Amino acid sequence: MLDQRVLPTREVYRVYRDYREVARAIKDMVIRGAPAIGVAAAMGIALGARTLRAADPARDFERLCRAFASTRPTAVNLFWAIQRMRRVFTRNRHRSPDTIRTLLEREALAIHDEDVATNRTLGMHGAALLEDGATVLTHCNAGALATAGFGTALAVVRAAIDAGKRIQVIACETRPFLQGARLTAWELKKDRIPVTLITDNMAGHLMQRERVSCVIVGTDRTAANGDVANKIGTYPLAVLAHRHAIPFYVAAPLSSIDFGCPNGDKIPIEERPVREVTHVLGRQIAPSGIRVLNPAFDVTPNELVTAIVTERGIARQPLGRTLPRLVEGAPAKPERKAEARRMRARRR
Amino acid sequence: MLDQRVLPTREVYRVYRDYREVARAIKDMVIRGAPAIGVAAAMGIALGARTLRAADPARDFERLCRAFASTRPTAVNLFWAIQRMRRVFTRNRHRSPDTIRTLLEREALAIHDEDVATNRTLGMHGAALLEDGATVLTHCNAGALATAGFGTALAVVRAAIDAGKRIQVIACETRPFLQGARLTAWELKKDRIPVTLITDNMAGHLMQRERVSCVIVGTDRTAANGDVANKIGTYPLAVLAHRHAIPFYVAAPLSSIDFGCPNGDKIPIEERPVREVTHVLGRQIAPSGIRVLNPAFDVTPNELVTAIVTERGIARQPLGRTLPRLVEGAPAKPERKAEARRMRARRR
Repeated sequence: MLDQRVLPTREVYRVYRDYREVARAIKDMVIRGAPAIGVAAAMGIALGARTLRAADPARDFERLCRAFASTRPTAVNLFWAIQRMRRVFTRNRHRSPDTIRTLLEREALAIHDEDVATNRTLGMHGAALLEDGATVLTHCNAGALATAGFGTALAVVRAAIDAGKRIQVIACETRPFLQGARLTAWELKKDRIPVTLITDNMAGHLMQRERVSCVIVGTDRTAANGDVANKIGTYPLAVLAHRHAIPFYVAAPLSSIDFGCPNGDKIPIEERPVREVTHVLGRQIAPSGIRVLNPAFDVTPNELVTAIVTERGIARQPLGRTLPRLVEGAPAKPERKAEARRMRARRR
Repeated sequence: MLDQRVLPTREVYRVYRDYREVARAIKDMVIRGAPAIGVAAAMGIALGARTLRAADPARDFERLCRAFASTRPTAVNLFWAIQRMRRVFTRNRHRSPDTIRTLLEREALAIHDEDVATNRTLGMHGAALLEDGATVLTHCNAGALATAGFGTALAVVRAAIDAGKRIQVIACETRPFLQGARLTAWELKKDRIPVTLITDNMAGHLMQRERVSCVIVGTDRTAANGDVANKIGTYPLAVLAHRHAIPFYVAAPLSSIDFGCPNGDKIPIEERPVREVTHVLGRQIAPSGIRVLNPAFDVTPNELVTAIVTERGIARQPLGRTLPRLVEGAPAKPERKAEARRMRARRR
């Protein structure tokens, strides 16, 4: 794993040989980003499966799954990836340990490859939303570093640029963990995509000055009604975008949409260590012993979301109706509404 | 001066013997906060006046004033304090150099003492706005460290506590310079006032969870119509407070209200060095050579301001009408509206 905690000043790769180290790396944010966490957990489970004991492999496998399920509570891709691995195990539990291991490894690699493919398709759908010359404001890192490759929010930017549009990005630094300053700025600069760094609290001022064309963010878990859990600070951006009539888009592979979760109130919000707030890269910025809150995510209510971009197309308002249609495979774009209505009628 | 750049981990006092050092200290934010800047500039001018040459004292004095006027463009208290010092000089220009020096020193000390008195009165007026048990969210540092003592926004908190109310404070860390984490948290903790530190982008989440009773901030310059320039990140808090129907109060000594400035569009916004964003206490947090914006202030439009608390009382909506009345000396509280109308009628 590329250790994302020490970017952008150092590029350090870590090799893990024990699944517990992989779980620890997810918890400590060596790797982060909802899709990347899902892929890493699948890889970790495949690694852990090498140590399943013949006596009670099912029990061993569940312990393995639990180790990953307890790392980060909010990102639903984690639970989705664990579920995919569990299905492979359950379906093949009576086969030889070697076969099981091979099948689990194959599934983890499939999750990895599908993620890249998903992001490319998602990016292509989203690119249509960006006009030539647009300035995209983004928060946290929903880029290549947050996925198996290409990104989610940044996939939209990359696809628009690949289509010949001139796009520039404003990256919010994203306190406390600084994913915007350390990761988004780093990967965009590496790809020569024009990027300007700001502190999170400058976004409102830039919107006032009409310097933002749209906001695009990723999501750690989106509920069935379109409420979006994402990195802390996303909700204020949505409120500001709404006030300034700036479109607010969410790039969400279907693996990050939790159709079992009716709305945002039901999404668990992870509270992270105090030290992330009181220290920046080891330097103390607040008085010792100060009381601190550190919720890692917030929930943006669906009414503030202009559209959700997925690998199956774009869901617009009302999201509670258009999102489920994407999973059913029906087209969700407004221009195809009549067609969708016809298809639903035929199904009845 | 207490060097505010190295708080809260170190308490370092600096002694300046040359007015240019004082101007430099203001520019480099050894001292900051609109009222404190005003007091420091007055003191600096009194210090510089010791070197007025008999040949052309008026020209020397103007050079002195210019050195301070060019330090920070947004805070109006700076220009107000320079103006007060200039008036003393002009009125006494034909007296002996010794007398002029003494009078300027006296004026600087008067500005200092009046600031403390002003803040105490302002705090008493504002305390009435806070209910027992209230949680006040504040941004940047509008405390004792930003003034000659007692603070502006924090004067309201201190006065309410002195009046026996239980008040707690949520301090936004205030990137990039971290006045909230380093200064507000430090001075409140020192005074044993309960304070919780958050990153700036957490305020929306806490308002959603109904954990904020009201917002109180200071101001670097408030226009005649009630548009409020304050530390970058204030405007998003006002927008969020409005969405959640949470009162948004501004603590503004009259010296920070610029009646010559019709509205917020006319307030110059200082752009500060890039390094404040890319480095935190010397640690690099972003890729080298990244493009950065660093506006130090934003403007909150008057319609988002519930009330402005001054040493002459509280101005409520419509601020464009109630604010000027405070200067005329007429009572501004709504309950005294009829009386104010009578008084104005009498004056005509």
